[in-house]
Amino acid sequence: MNGRCVITVGDLGEFGVVARIAERLPQGGTVLLGPGDDAAMVRSPDGRVVVTTDLLIEGRHFRRDWSSGYDIGRKAAAQNLSDIVAMGADPTGIVVGLGLPADAATGWLDDLTDGFRDECDLVGASVVGGDVTRCDLVVLGVTALGDLGGRAPVTRSGARPGDVVAVTGRLGHAAAGLALLAAGEKGPAELLDAHRRPAPPYACGPRAAALGATSMLDVSDGLLQDLGHVAEASEVGIVLLPEAFVISESLEEAAGRLGVDPLGWILSGGDDHALAATFPQSVRLPQEWTVVGRAEAGKGVQVNGRSMAYEGWDHFRE
Amino acid sequence: MNGRCVITVGDLGEFGVVARIAERLPQGGTVLLGPGDDAAMVRSPDGRVVVTTDLLIEGRHFRRDWSSGYDIGRKAAAQNLSDIVAMGADPTGIVVGLGLPADAATGWLDDLTDGFRDECDLVGASVVGGDVTRCDLVVLGVTALGDLGGRAPVTRSGARPGDVVAVTGRLGHAAAGLALLAAGEKGPAELLDAHRRPAPPYACGPRAAALGATSMLDVSDGLLQDLGHVAEASEVGIVLLPEAFVISESLEEAAGRLGVDPLGWILSGGDDHALAATFPQSVRLPQEWTVVGRAEAGKGVQVNGRSMAYEGWDHFRE
Repeated sequence: MNGRCVITVGDLGEFGVVARIAERLPQGGTVLLGPGDDAAMVRSPDGRVVVTTDLLIEGRHFRRDWSSGYDIGRKAAAQNLSDIVAMGADPTGIVVGLGLPADAATGWLDDLTDGFRDECDLVGASVVGGDVTRCDLVVLGVTALGDLGGRAPVTRSGARPGDVVAVTGRLGHAAAGLALLAAGEKGPAELLDAHRRPAPPYACGPRAAALGATSMLDVSDGLLQDLGHVAEASEVGIVLLPEAFVISESLEEAAGRLGVDPLGWILSGGDDHALAATFPQSVRLPQEWTVVGRAEAGKGVQVNGRSMAYEGWDHFRE
Repeated sequence: MNGRCVITVGDLGEFGVVARIAERLPQGGTVLLGPGDDAAMVRSPDGRVVVTTDLLIEGRHFRRDWSSGYDIGRKAAAQNLSDIVAMGADPTGIVVGLGLPADAATGWLDDLTDGFRDECDLVGASVVGGDVTRCDLVVLGVTALGDLGGRAPVTRSGARPGDVVAVTGRLGHAAAGLALLAAGEKGPAELLDAHRRPAPPYACGPRAAALGATSMLDVSDGLLQDLGHVAEASEVGIVLLPEAFVISESLEEAAGRLGVDPLGWILSGGDDHALAATFPQSVRLPQEWTVVGRAEAGKGVQVNGRSMAYEGWDHFRE
């Protein structure tokens, strides 16, 4: 590498790595005790804390040759923060268990840390603690906390027949980006970036709760599969109107290049972390939401009058 | 295997695995919303939530041929719950990110789940959520939450010159057990079991906070190294009195078999999750604590008048 010596996390040792990470992480107003002790402490003024966790494994959830350390940090934080806002809560803090190969460069680690920091900064949360260990693969165990501010949590089980089904945020972009990368395509850049770094519509989650959303979730495994969970938990049927989905120019272009139907990415692609929610018909939805269907008596998810299998991601079957 | 067909997690698929785990997990009184949604919700009546996370990797933190699934679950929960009580808090819930090889048997997964459940049950906490993904190695990303019930958190930085240093719980047993296993020894069983399954003195943490402990931590990397963190954070010196440590018969026996000094395991062995704390001299300590030294003006940790290097576990250097 230009004859320069690359400093690795193995050179720093465990405590050097921890110190290096901690000094890049400012602690925001929700944090009462940050990194450096047996545990951290975060405000939970509501008297209830919302908590979610995800485990990301190199080669399954990200590739270091396809995504930068910064993008991986952004994405790992985003998918957890998105689960918090999908309950209607405001994210407060995250903790990260980090498995690192000893030969990982410290510059890469700094980028990863900055990615976590910057994504949390979007929602006023902080990285409050973590754990570092050696592993042949990069492994990220991310847990996010949130506060409901007195609101009721919006679960998957509250949809009622007659509710409208609406989505906000990108759909199908990350899946298209992944397909393009796998095919060796160099663009459209917007879609490649969508795979590398989701852009969840964070503010829409707590706002939807305040508007009276009856159910909500973050679209992580594909819209059909995720709405299938809502249908099952709420004991309703969901009818999607495919013509209601906006197909962007970049999705059309990518679908053309790869010879596929872009609606497939929209209905079955994961990883964009859009929000899907149901609302009573009486709710006047702000422009950020697109109505794409309705809940009715019945079961499962129907598109164009056909029951759809839940075509989404299964980590043990793919 | 006797011609019988072993059902694997790959056979169940991701959602089958999640459902199988969830049905083995009763939800206790601290839980407002358990597994099955984007996030769980736990009581945090104190208005502040204590949070800690650890990442455990097969081959580094446990071996499936040395420990049962049940023991691995107990240990993974224990080391996180111990971090919560070391702040003086009461554990409320844990979430688990679980990486599993597709060929892992469902019976092994059930044992693992039961181990998590039973360890949490000891402290009135519940496994409230998680994430399952496929991984060639078993990976456990565990996060524990706790509530301080109005108490101040007991950090590493509050020790003052003149304080006594005290410990509670086993020391050196897990390290001796690991050394015995590595040497192919079959006993003493008490020590092999101590490696497989720690027995943190959970109730002593919140009690120490109520007694007025000035600093506290869980001994996870070895007493010398961990007290070194207290000395550094509190800007004091710590003098240990080696004759104050109780060396059990089983430790003597193991040391004799392997030809080592058992005090080495006590001072440098990790994984027992004892608690170490400092208290003002005026505090009348209950019998569960053993005074093993004192804090004084100065720095570092001294044993028999000699400054000790922090001989403990560094995950990148071992």
